[in-house]
Amino acid sequence: MANSKQTSIGTVAAEPEPIDLDWSTTALLIIDMQRDFMEPGGFGETLGNDVSQLARAVKPIAAVLDAAREIGLLVVHTREGHLPDLSDAPRAKIERGAPSLRIGDPGPMGRILIRGEAGHDIIPALYPLDSEIVLQKYGIENLLVCGVTTEVCVHTTVREANDRGYRCVVLADGCASYFPEFHEMGLKMIKAQGGIFGWVSDSAAVLKAMTAETSNHLAAGASR
Amino acid sequence: MANSKQTSIGTVAAEPEPIDLDWSTTALLIIDMQRDFMEPGGFGETLGNDVSQLARAVKPIAAVLDAAREIGLLVVHTREGHLPDLSDAPRAKIERGAPSLRIGDPGPMGRILIRGEAGHDIIPALYPLDSEIVLQKYGIENLLVCGVTTEVCVHTTVREANDRGYRCVVLADGCASYFPEFHEMGLKMIKAQGGIFGWVSDSAAVLKAMTAETSNHLAAGASR
Repeated sequence: MANSKQTSIGTVAAEPEPIDLDWSTTALLIIDMQRDFMEPGGFGETLGNDVSQLARAVKPIAAVLDAAREIGLLVVHTREGHLPDLSDAPRAKIERGAPSLRIGDPGPMGRILIRGEAGHDIIPALYPLDSEIVLQKYGIENLLVCGVTTEVCVHTTVREANDRGYRCVVLADGCASYFPEFHEMGLKMIKAQGGIFGWVSDSAAVLKAMTAETSNHLAAGASR
Repeated sequence: MANSKQTSIGTVAAEPEPIDLDWSTTALLIIDMQRDFMEPGGFGETLGNDVSQLARAVKPIAAVLDAAREIGLLVVHTREGHLPDLSDAPRAKIERGAPSLRIGDPGPMGRILIRGEAGHDIIPALYPLDSEIVLQKYGIENLLVCGVTTEVCVHTTVREANDRGYRCVVLADGCASYFPEFHEMGLKMIKAQGGIFGWVSDSAAVLKAMTAETSNHLAAGASR
């Protein structure tokens, strides 16, 4: 490519003023265009809403999605939904209001707002390509962190996640550095001052806690 | 399931103190375990590093990954890498240091740190399942936001993204609400006070800017 560092900028008419966008650092973010919110019989309708109000957004999004794919933009789709056992759904959310069907109840498109059910999926008109990102909105609060290198990408991730309220447990033997002294010091920094960035553990300790969980699973599942 | 709201908690030995983890809200985060950092001939080695230093982390991570899959934990793999035309790679990053091969140069595992090349991929020992998340670390700065509903999930996303430094352009006709007055007011709130949360545009304006880009692409590609 003759001109590989060429920057392509588009100017978009917008309020309060036009905005210049560098397409190479711009993503298209499509939020929750799921059958459960958009189609009759889904969660939106069970809450008493008129789902036809939402249909007007489909065509404009489809047009922008086509153009975005044409120019190679990063496309991200989000989906809201919960685990089949509802363990990640706050009770206050499940019990709110008086919908005809609550989250997890069986409906015409499968269980309401449960991952993997037909109603949880994106509507056909805007269906994601395999190359696009589908961002499940998970209720994650804790991160078990491992990888390389300890003092660069692992540290940056833990610092930012900690600032955003995640509890980070770094696996000492699951991290490494090209420089052993940076590895050691990097781990010390995380757990210093009462755990200023998070916790430091190791794979054996995590495995021990997970294995207890596996035993519970096996004990709970009678016929397994 | 008899006991669907059962919470499973694991206690992990850690410093500065043991930590209780609710597995249903815990993710395993594996950072940049890519061939380019881990294997001979990759970027790590071209920078003059001894890649054998990193190999020690593989076995502990593989053990935790197996156990995490067993108990159904969310698993997230990250990858660092750039677009083939390097348009998303800061010049300061490309030019830094004196590696024998720079980012984008052809190496034994393909072009160094370029998405889609063999060296960019996760090492075989920790290869992601299709059901796991592979988080490409993109250099995205701008978000074109659309979806439903305007005043709930779209607003929340834009507010949080704006706080984190993204420039958000909301497509008015690509958003909708069950309540038209919430839709209108929601859009006004975004662009008020000089654009306190971001910009409001519409699909036609974005398409116009993208179409100009498509024409540029076509003009640039001689034989297309």
